[in-house]
Amino acid sequence: MKDSRTLNFNTRLCAVIGNPVSHSLSPAIHNAGFDALGLDYIYLPCQVEDVAGVLAGMRAMHNFRGMSVTIPHKIEAMKHVDEIHDADRTIGSINTIINDNGRLIGLGTDGPGAMKALVDAGVDLAERQLLMIGAGGAARAISFTLALKAGLAGMELLDIDQAVVQGLAGDLARHTGISVSAEVMSDSALADAMSRADIIIHSTPVGMRPKVEASLVPAELFRAGQVVFDVVYTPLETKLLRDARTAGLQTVSGVEMFINQAVLQFEQFTGQKAPAEVMRQVVMEHLAT
Amino acid sequence: MKDSRTLNFNTRLCAVIGNPVSHSLSPAIHNAGFDALGLDYIYLPCQVEDVAGVLAGMRAMHNFRGMSVTIPHKIEAMKHVDEIHDADRTIGSINTIINDNGRLIGLGTDGPGAMKALVDAGVDLAERQLLMIGAGGAARAISFTLALKAGLAGMELLDIDQAVVQGLAGDLARHTGISVSAEVMSDSALADAMSRADIIIHSTPVGMRPKVEASLVPAELFRAGQVVFDVVYTPLETKLLRDARTAGLQTVSGVEMFINQAVLQFEQFTGQKAPAEVMRQVVMEHLAT
Repeated sequence: MKDSRTLNFNTRLCAVIGNPVSHSLSPAIHNAGFDALGLDYIYLPCQVEDVAGVLAGMRAMHNFRGMSVTIPHKIEAMKHVDEIHDADRTIGSINTIINDNGRLIGLGTDGPGAMKALVDAGVDLAERQLLMIGAGGAARAISFTLALKAGLAGMELLDIDQAVVQGLAGDLARHTGISVSAEVMSDSALADAMSRADIIIHSTPVGMRPKVEASLVPAELFRAGQVVFDVVYTPLETKLLRDARTAGLQTVSGVEMFINQAVLQFEQFTGQKAPAEVMRQVVMEHLAT
Repeated sequence: MKDSRTLNFNTRLCAVIGNPVSHSLSPAIHNAGFDALGLDYIYLPCQVEDVAGVLAGMRAMHNFRGMSVTIPHKIEAMKHVDEIHDADRTIGSINTIINDNGRLIGLGTDGPGAMKALVDAGVDLAERQLLMIGAGGAARAISFTLALKAGLAGMELLDIDQAVVQGLAGDLARHTGISVSAEVMSDSALADAMSRADIIIHSTPVGMRPKVEASLVPAELFRAGQVVFDVVYTPLETKLLRDARTAGLQTVSGVEMFINQAVLQFEQFTGQKAPAEVMRQVVMEHLAT
């Protein structure tokens, strides 16, 4: 337990910026991690509209070490950092900023966090066909990481917005060389894609609290051997995952991606191996209440 | 004791900015005060060169509530706040910034802190003649506050820099109407001024650690009934104060001004009456080690 009376010149400040940010689990998860390792770090949630301003402040403060960036600032933040990892520039968003002695470095841990969740669950990605439902920010991060690193056979994208889904498919083809197709979401397009998919990743808000009885995938479309990953983690088991589990399929909860992206951020903030089990436990405790 | 694991959306951040700032007592004094009242506030020291940047960050963060400003930023900070109390604009420096929902308000608590130190020590200021030795930033803050609020008979200023001392005298005459004279520091000017002074305030760095055996005022110049106040508080009793006490004069330590300016800042940060005794105790503990 870190006592506020010990805060000093060497204490490092980290923060999550977003709007809203009052319900973020990031302060709890990171402060528990700092505490478990006895690190002289603290983490605060900051509601922010002026991204350029808060990043100017971060750059100016010797001890403002790390930042998590959440909605709606993941794209805007890229404009105000000094350096961005190549893959993240292509993805078009970042969720992490490190202050390296006044130089702000932006990167993303959502994609690597999702891939780690699949790998840790024992999912074999090589030469498999992926179906991505949704083509927004989370889908971009995950699909780029998997396209670059997972050795997939190919990828199909579905989204209700034609421009968005074709834009992501074009970016993936151009920058990763993966075999990719894109369709506007419809019953028939979904059924077709489901008939080919080995791994299904759902990355839209459908099924999130409070509308927990919603799912985009009719249960009858599931086929034996498929793996279903839902980015939504409130509730921990969405209707999509419950239906998939009932159908005998392997499921991976979005909470694993959330924990992993935080673990990877923590390691960027501190340069130390994160106490992942402590961080997992904090998330689970918060989600259970 | 505030546990870092409880940091949350409602936690308010305060900081001292300066360069250097590693030895500042402000984090210890304010964190102890927050703790004593059970307030959800924390206070960090931040080494800063880019004042505009850190203030942009403060304005952008919903929970960056208060800032102490120390050397060398007390003048520069005025350029980047949204509002300055009239008296402080005339003084030309601030040591406190409050973030009022994105609007930054600058003010000074050094002058009021010094005046409170004198009043609390039972020093009668009305119709007395003040000698101010030194005409830098601290002298400006103290002399303006006393000129406006103490009902002094008049003020004499001494400094080694003619432009500085005449500048302050001119500003005081113009903005406060006090009867004021200025001289370049010399043995004879000091002896003359000491022969007229009821209250002597020393506001140069002379006598500060490590050169603790230095004093600008030869002991033979003291006269019965004078009061001597030294802005320097490391050591707690400077040679100037020791000589004055030995001569039977009343003395006031600069630590009282330091504590008072922090108490007044605390009340600006929190809107609560500061636990002054707790804050005093922390300062004394730190200065004793």
